Amino acid sequence: MTSAPAILAFDTATSNCSVAITRGDRSSGRVVGSLSFASGVSHSRRLLGSLDWLLQTTEMSISDIAALAVGTGPGSFTGLRIGMATAKGLSHGTGLPLIGISSLDAVAASVRSQRLVCVAMDARKKEVYCCFYRSKPDQTVVRCSKPAVMAPEELARLINEPVTMAGDGVCVYNELFSQLLGDTAELLPWVSAPSAVNIGFLASSAQAAGSYLDLDRATPEYVRSSDAQLSLVSPLKSG
Amino acid sequence: MTSAPAILAFDTATSNCSVAITRGDRSSGRVVGSLSFASGVSHSRRLLGSLDWLLQTTEMSISDIAALAVGTGPGSFTGLRIGMATAKGLSHGTGLPLIGISSLDAVAASVRSQRLVCVAMDARKKEVYCCFYRSKPDQTVVRCSKPAVMAPEELARLINEPVTMAGDGVCVYNELFSQLLGDTAELLPWVSAPSAVNIGFLASSAQAAGSYLDLDRATPEYVRSSDAQLSLVSPLKSG
Repeated sequence: MTSAPAILAFDTATSNCSVAITRGDRSSGRVVGSLSFASGVSHSRRLLGSLDWLLQTTEMSISDIAALAVGTGPGSFTGLRIGMATAKGLSHGTGLPLIGISSLDAVAASVRSQRLVCVAMDARKKEVYCCFYRSKPDQTVVRCSKPAVMAPEELARLINEPVTMAGDGVCVYNELFSQLLGDTAELLPWVSAPSAVNIGFLASSAQAAGSYLDLDRATPEYVRSSDAQLSLVSPLKSG
Repeated sequence: MTSAPAILAFDTATSNCSVAITRGDRSSGRVVGSLSFASGVSHSRRLLGSLDWLLQTTEMSISDIAALAVGTGPGSFTGLRIGMATAKGLSHGTGLPLIGISSLDAVAASVRSQRLVCVAMDARKKEVYCCFYRSKPDQTVVRCSKPAVMAPEELARLINEPVTMAGDGVCVYNELFSQLLGDTAELLPWVSAPSAVNIGFLASSAQAAGSYLDLDRATPEYVRSSDAQLSLVSPLKSG
């Protein structure tokens, strides 16, 4: 069992509230405890209670934690603001450093695939937040595009090689992606929400390197702007 | 969002305590809430509190639940007895039907692979509980062996085709499997404990079919005899 420093991680980018305590990274680390639930609009009411419950249940106190990690989005604007505000408040109050991890990367980290990986999160307004990834030999994934927001039809048009798609956008637009992409797309609707376990595991290298957020300047990764859409690097071009 | 009946599921086959409320199956269902933590020997103290917390947090009551589902092992004898006793008590007290799901199947359900899938759970005494699976086209896995208990070296000798291995036995015997199987084995040590989410999803078809455990007869799936049974039998053999 690893004795790597403990990280307290959470994500509120979607209607799902996810909280975890992890040690180390995915390949050699472990989950001390985790919880997640569909919270609707009640993140503000539930998040601190969930963190408290998990610490109590795992018989840990905040003094056993080495760093905090928060999912920075993109996602629900209200959810992101509650997550970031809570993270900053906890960091300020406890003196623990804060690490930010993209909520899209946290979804991608759940996918194991030799294909191109596409994370698509429901962005409302008939759009999805999306980002492309490729697997490394050690089965972790690395980004091969910037996060963007676009219509699901437009995302489907960007894809012309076998792809594995995850994220709650795959739940919402399951039929549409099936119709437009057919056998090209392997859809994983059950890998839907950013997992705080993955955020903790992804944060471990930042924690080891001392790469922390500046509490005065850190903001969520909202993505929604036409600039972001233009900056998407097509995996087809780079592949 | 599915409105399939809600299932309250839990597993205490390992030192990990996992609890979930799910609706439907993995492909079209959803997780209402879940939690899991390394509980050491304190399952008896923590399990009911965790079930209560999850119901409260998801704003559900026991009257919103259609069925209970429990991981039946194999695993820690004490953990299994606590899990089954709690499940029977809850079922008796609430009148809710009880579904049993193999803890090995609950681990296998987390694995997506075109290869042979092998789940290996630490059975102490230098042995592992193990079972083999193959993937169906719909990405679910089905058993192609019976559960067994054996030395990890013996398990490795049984494998002569590309395999994906998961379960906490892969954490404990990671080096040994790497040495004996080399590139033949893809090891997923991070898919280690039975997930109550998978138990809930796997239980949904049993719930639909009305296939429930008989509270008077149901026992955990121990796979090997307990020390108490062995010490009872061995004097007779040696005599």
